[in-house]
Amino acid sequence: MAASYSIGIDLGGTNLRAAAIDKDGKMLGKISGSTPVAEGPGPVVDDMAQSVEKLREQFGRDHLAGIGAGVPGNIDMAKGVIVGWGNMPIFNGYPMRDELSKRLNTRVILENDANAAALGEKWMGAGRGVEDLVLLTLGTGIGGGIIVDGRILHGQIGMAGEIGHMTISPNGNPCGCGNRGCVEKHASATAVSAMARLLGLGHDLTAKEVYDLARNVDDPRNARAREIFRVMGEALGIALASLINIFNFPLYLLGGGVVAAWEFFAPAMIEEVERRSFTYRSTLKTAPTRIEAAKLGGDAGLFGAACLPLEDVRT
Amino acid sequence: MAASYSIGIDLGGTNLRAAAIDKDGKMLGKISGSTPVAEGPGPVVDDMAQSVEKLREQFGRDHLAGIGAGVPGNIDMAKGVIVGWGNMPIFNGYPMRDELSKRLNTRVILENDANAAALGEKWMGAGRGVEDLVLLTLGTGIGGGIIVDGRILHGQIGMAGEIGHMTISPNGNPCGCGNRGCVEKHASATAVSAMARLLGLGHDLTAKEVYDLARNVDDPRNARAREIFRVMGEALGIALASLINIFNFPLYLLGGGVVAAWEFFAPAMIEEVERRSFTYRSTLKTAPTRIEAAKLGGDAGLFGAACLPLEDVRT
Repeated sequence: MAASYSIGIDLGGTNLRAAAIDKDGKMLGKISGSTPVAEGPGPVVDDMAQSVEKLREQFGRDHLAGIGAGVPGNIDMAKGVIVGWGNMPIFNGYPMRDELSKRLNTRVILENDANAAALGEKWMGAGRGVEDLVLLTLGTGIGGGIIVDGRILHGQIGMAGEIGHMTISPNGNPCGCGNRGCVEKHASATAVSAMARLLGLGHDLTAKEVYDLARNVDDPRNARAREIFRVMGEALGIALASLINIFNFPLYLLGGGVVAAWEFFAPAMIEEVERRSFTYRSTLKTAPTRIEAAKLGGDAGLFGAACLPLEDVRT
Repeated sequence: MAASYSIGIDLGGTNLRAAAIDKDGKMLGKISGSTPVAEGPGPVVDDMAQSVEKLREQFGRDHLAGIGAGVPGNIDMAKGVIVGWGNMPIFNGYPMRDELSKRLNTRVILENDANAAALGEKWMGAGRGVEDLVLLTLGTGIGGGIIVDGRILHGQIGMAGEIGHMTISPNGNPCGCGNRGCVEKHASATAVSAMARLLGLGHDLTAKEVYDLARNVDDPRNARAREIFRVMGEALGIALASLINIFNFPLYLLGGGVVAAWEFFAPAMIEEVERRSFTYRSTLKTAPTRIEAAKLGGDAGLFGAACLPLEDVRT
């Protein structure tokens, strides 16, 4: 019987979600795991396997094309091992793919979560019909995924796409990666919160709360909140201008919660891109570069993970 | 009779060269054109056609796989038109591919010269056996070519690879492209000359002359000449660190005359890469990133141009 759906898992910073998605991109069912990621690799993989089992029982084994899993951190694709996961070092070196595969008795495709999200947007989101795109997810950090010719760009071992660690200012904010001036230290949700603190808006404001201040013209902090998004948009624009010069892709997508503040950061971002990228300017009338918001929100990674085993089915 | 060789043309800043190269990468013959590029598109294309004719008569029409031409400036690949050539605006908008094709009565493949050089290095130079690489050519500016899965990355219209215009310092030196802090304004031969002037080493020193000063420990300008290459190496390192984080490719090649000064700029370059790229550091023992000098010198573009029509033959 022909395979007609697959199961995608998205392992987030707190717990996991899994979804059954058919080959046309329709989400058949979605569930959340119950094990906190902090409990470590063993319990988490048990939870992943149980979640898959539930969906597999519900939608049938015969029609299942395969399992894809998007996980944070760097993956060694050939080995299916988590090489580095900054704030969860307990997972470092864990052979996630084989452990999950063993429990489920079937092949599993492991992928970096940001790469999976980029593939998800390409398949069913803002990148439908586009074969080459870059996705930046603005969250705690900035995740990146690059799609070339419809497929994830992996590089030598699967670490390609670490766009959040492009240097936009050589003496900028320090980053846990050892660099200074990484774009994620100037344009992520965390960077927005940090700037709010520096500007005296409050000690523990979230990016969402800074956004609310930027919308509230009656708040005395309104102008400073807007300035934060302007500075954040500039930083993002510097990175995007370099990416456009490097790739000349038709589409650059921005995902993550901070994108809600588009009205406040996008003007500075586009201004910076126009000024810094002659590729952007010189193709404006003939083959314009689109910079747009991603569409699938938190489900991008689920769609991308589910897409991985379906690739053979779809082509 | 099976095609066994092709003809590559490399249109430089002053005049053109053409070579017949067989499918195994052996250069059968090489000639130079006689028309200065400054005379404009018509005379230059006539010269290109005559050069091809000479080689075609010498090595036989029956065995010729095709013609490839690398030209400076941005190419619209679909149209075969030169979109922008900074210091030769007379060529802008010129349908180079079709004009040459008409004169030769055969198909011509047009390509950006830096992209052609990257393909040449991949085929017969320092990139042999490597499927994914980036080539930076340090000359008057910095040209870039990106090879993915053995093929040139073109992007939407063929403008991908403008790596010389990555921003390495948002308020750095102004660039003709409209940006500030383009790596080519901090790490090209021109940038080396400009720094020599700023440091009072001389008004019109070439990068080669600055290199000679760096080697001459008896010259009072020796320390300053070495400092110039250290600063240039740092700038290059910032760009390379971002590229390594973006691509995770196994190989990054540096070409152009300035590479002769490797001993003076490479230490600062590698130090910067190590500090700024966790991808570089974390793969150092398992899947190291190689940063190396290109091998084909001024012939890289000829090999790459000749490789274009041979691609079908070779695969």
